Amino acid sequence: MYIEKINQPTDVKNLNSEQLHILADEMRQALLQKLSKHGGHFGPNLGMVEAAIALHYVFNSPTDKIVYDVSHQSYPHKMLTGRKDAFLYEDKYDDVSGYSNPDESDHDFFTIGHTSTSVSLACGLAKGRDLKGDKENIIAVIGDGSLSGGEALEGLDFASELNSNLIIVVNDNDMSIAENHGGLYKNLKKLRDTDGKAECNLFKSMGLDYVFVKDGNDIDSLITAFKQVKDSTYPVVVHICTQKGKGYEIAEKNKEAWHYCGPFDLETGKSDMPQDGEDYSSMTADILLKKMKEDKTIVGITSATPTVFGFTEDKRKEAGSQFVDVGIAEETAVALASGIAKNGGKPIYGVYSTFIQRTYDQLSQDLCINNSAATILVYWASVYGMNDVTHLGIYDIPMMSNIPNLVYLAPTTKEEYLAMLDWSIEQNDHPVAIRVPISVVSDGKKVTKDFSKLNEYEVTQNGSKIAIVALGSFYSVGAKTAEIIENKTGVKPTLINPIYITGTDDKLLEQLKENHDIVITVEDGVLDGGFGEKIARFYGNSDIKVLNYGLKKEFLDRYNPEEIVKANRLTPEQIAEDVCGIIG
Amino acid sequence: MYIEKINQPTDVKNLNSEQLHILADEMRQALLQKLSKHGGHFGPNLGMVEAAIALHYVFNSPTDKIVYDVSHQSYPHKMLTGRKDAFLYEDKYDDVSGYSNPDESDHDFFTIGHTSTSVSLACGLAKGRDLKGDKENIIAVIGDGSLSGGEALEGLDFASELNSNLIIVVNDNDMSIAENHGGLYKNLKKLRDTDGKAECNLFKSMGLDYVFVKDGNDIDSLITAFKQVKDSTYPVVVHICTQKGKGYEIAEKNKEAWHYCGPFDLETGKSDMPQDGEDYSSMTADILLKKMKEDKTIVGITSATPTVFGFTEDKRKEAGSQFVDVGIAEETAVALASGIAKNGGKPIYGVYSTFIQRTYDQLSQDLCINNSAATILVYWASVYGMNDVTHLGIYDIPMMSNIPNLVYLAPTTKEEYLAMLDWSIEQNDHPVAIRVPISVVSDGKKVTKDFSKLNEYEVTQNGSKIAIVALGSFYSVGAKTAEIIENKTGVKPTLINPIYITGTDDKLLEQLKENHDIVITVEDGVLDGGFGEKIARFYGNSDIKVLNYGLKKEFLDRYNPEEIVKANRLTPEQIAEDVCGIIG
Repeated sequence: MYIEKINQPTDVKNLNSEQLHILADEMRQALLQKLSKHGGHFGPNLGMVEAAIALHYVFNSPTDKIVYDVSHQSYPHKMLTGRKDAFLYEDKYDDVSGYSNPDESDHDFFTIGHTSTSVSLACGLAKGRDLKGDKENIIAVIGDGSLSGGEALEGLDFASELNSNLIIVVNDNDMSIAENHGGLYKNLKKLRDTDGKAECNLFKSMGLDYVFVKDGNDIDSLITAFKQVKDSTYPVVVHICTQKGKGYEIAEKNKEAWHYCGPFDLETGKSDMPQDGEDYSSMTADILLKKMKEDKTIVGITSATPTVFGFTEDKRKEAGSQFVDVGIAEETAVALASGIAKNGGKPIYGVYSTFIQRTYDQLSQDLCINNSAATILVYWASVYGMNDVTHLGIYDIPMMSNIPNLVYLAPTTKEEYLAMLDWSIEQNDHPVAIRVPISVVSDGKKVTKDFSKLNEYEVTQNGSKIAIVALGSFYSVGAKTAEIIENKTGVKPTLINPIYITGTDDKLLEQLKENHDIVITVEDGVLDGGFGEKIARFYGNSDIKVLNYGLKKEFLDRYNPEEIVKANRLTPEQIAEDVCGIIG
Repeated sequence: MYIEKINQPTDVKNLNSEQLHILADEMRQALLQKLSKHGGHFGPNLGMVEAAIALHYVFNSPTDKIVYDVSHQSYPHKMLTGRKDAFLYEDKYDDVSGYSNPDESDHDFFTIGHTSTSVSLACGLAKGRDLKGDKENIIAVIGDGSLSGGEALEGLDFASELNSNLIIVVNDNDMSIAENHGGLYKNLKKLRDTDGKAECNLFKSMGLDYVFVKDGNDIDSLITAFKQVKDSTYPVVVHICTQKGKGYEIAEKNKEAWHYCGPFDLETGKSDMPQDGEDYSSMTADILLKKMKEDKTIVGITSATPTVFGFTEDKRKEAGSQFVDVGIAEETAVALASGIAKNGGKPIYGVYSTFIQRTYDQLSQDLCINNSAATILVYWASVYGMNDVTHLGIYDIPMMSNIPNLVYLAPTTKEEYLAMLDWSIEQNDHPVAIRVPISVVSDGKKVTKDFSKLNEYEVTQNGSKIAIVALGSFYSVGAKTAEIIENKTGVKPTLINPIYITGTDDKLLEQLKENHDIVITVEDGVLDGGFGEKIARFYGNSDIKVLNYGLKKEFLDRYNPEEIVKANRLTPEQIAEDVCGIIG
């Protein structure tokens, strides 16, 4: 096999056209094998095989520098830059991350996982080169789906200011994770339909030169185009049309489902890990669909990840105009929600914790200063969420909860979540966010709480000496801790469900002083700027001792959550041990 | 005068063409009078007089809804919607804010102050309307300068998805605050040069309809165009060409200087408040220019506010290619800085505290995960900074300081600031931000500290019982507090300059336990998620009492800083009083 002999990009350059085609087939087979056993980003990588080969055939990486947007399509690039073993041999599958990674190779320049960053980052590399008087090529590879993101559009607009070499490869497979949304995609279609000849051209309107490649899975066409733009002295877009999931028929036919995959049967395409049990995503979509039928002003909003709150293709169809996909455009999603709320609608925006951080300013300015009654559902906000360094779900509390006017709620059970969702949709006074847990816990208890009484915590167990304030998804950690302490010492701790991440229940906290010596806080996120520190501040000038449990501020990467939880002394056993040590 | 009789938009509709022209002249005169005495946004408002008249002549506000981007150009709109007195009578000048404000009038729908938000917010109003089955017109008014912002471009892209009425008035005066930067401005020029007829058209490439108005200061042309698009059933851009500062020759000739003005002499244009003394902005530009000459890899970056760190037009010219304006595009500014650092350059990004929050995700992902050695200078981060609710400088600490890898420094003196700047530019290990104070304090002391020893605080006065940790611009508050306490009680407090906002000096804090009972923290920002809470957390499980001084989490608006400082018990006298009360 050729792929076995590719140890660096120069090995690609030594192959002839026929050999390059065989190499592409081998790479695709290796990808299929690995992905069927290991899981990973599927469609984007199968579509990029030929372009990765052509890039390394024409350019001289790492002197020439390639920046992959999102970089979930960088597997073929990794295979050609000394990392093929991680795709050929099962025992080495985990030697590489799912994203570009400078720690793995000199051919990667940034750790990237969020979309729409490549053009601006590449502009930086180009500017650095120009300041030094160097001459290498700088290449950004960006998918059509990523183009709708503010940073990408800013970058496209800025690029022409460089007035020097920058090559932007637009990998157009006519898909985001789901179908594309936004007016620019009509322009991409027009360009595809006219072989790039349409006069009205988004890229040209941004001041960029433009080259069109009709078949972006044809190595020879790609090589011709890349040779044409190599050493260009001005920024140029190479618009290549590729097929997402190319080479695996089942994926070619259902691109959305095959954007990412878990392990699956290569013959049938069936998942090896059938999902069972309740989950908050589909539960939420079902409830919202029901509500939408009763109230035509309810509208779901996604920024290109509709399934985060259960809106699969069929459910989106069912919702009709009561579901809006803004494309990858989190800033617009939040502003849209604010505007809808101000004109009589009831917007619900579903979003991953790691992506809500793409819209801090809109949360503050468009939403919270205006006190618009929108609902934001924040998913995968947990140490048990995604574990790539670029996709951490443990920073939403410091990021969001210190913005005035926002009411950020942390449900502990399914019943509580549903009550909060109901309340949030129907109230008109506050921007509300709900931190949706990962696992569904149901206690069957009817929730009677009036959530409009802001910052009123709930005492779920009356005790003494020790009070445990356990937030949202880690309420169970607090409850278990209380149990262990009581068993060990006979002291029954007070247990508190704080409900509100964004405020302190000063009256209750004051009362605790009467017959408590220690207050413990437990949260499923970083401590710095988080929930527990507010409790520590409250008791600063008192005799109460406060112990905050949560995560250290650090960029974790591909971690084992159980190990991290232990390393931060976040298990009930560890917390109980600490507390027992203090009370002696 | 006609303006005296305009109490609502319907009063505009009753005027004939000649009367409308006289009204425009009267409004311009009133604006000149008020601005010369009161200060405010100058150029943008003088350019918008005719468009505001035409909008209210054609549309039916507030049923039809107009959203002004940034809204610093909404003075003429305010004059026509029941708020003329605040522009005609000196004693009423302060009755209105400088931005759109729903508390003032039903004709304003959002409190807006940051740029690039109008299209997405208007999309929300339009979607809300559609959900309810209503039919009113929704109009966004956005300046050309704001178009380069990610949220604006996202909004333009999304708008066509609405498939219903939305009118986007692009107010093109061929200027941002300074000159425009970015490729799209070449397209705007082409459209101006061809009377809107160029085939390649940014707005059309985003799927939008398009109407061109050559003279956007001609009421009749504007009325014709607005009548044409009124009740449109699809999104349409009306591109109007206006003159910034129109009607005041001095401003027409120097648009950048006259974007905003303080009180001035109407005859000569000379400022009534000549500035004297040192300031950190021009000091910084001068130092950077000097360094740039010695090191060609040093580069200044701005996102359309070059003078925030002193880069006036002449200094930008002097810096040449070593100064980059990305346009209003904070996300790209941070990504660019990261890319430059990764390719051997030394980037320094100067930005206002209120605008750095427009790029949280890029700080986290593009910069800090990649540990790129860029320098960010954060200006006007203080309770003494801008006091409009949309421009608060007191939220940067919770927003930034909880991001891993970032080193956020708080200088207390000019000497310290310069030493930090030097260190930051030359080091290669960390993304560094410096919280530049507003007032220059110089103590002449040589700074010998090695800033690479992260989180090593400086003890500036050894004492006992009480330790005061006073951050950055509020170090002087801490020092004065120490003095008062010593005078009152004879106890000499320990005084600490923490230098690092992003970390705790655990060793020193541990040592303090030996002979201190109380630790005070003082910071010039909100307490929630801020610096002091980290100290409170550190001492949670000890006998040390911690008192955190800073600001309450709230959206302050047009406040008196001295009053707010007092209300938060942030004066040295108040803090000393509290402390003396505790030590008895």
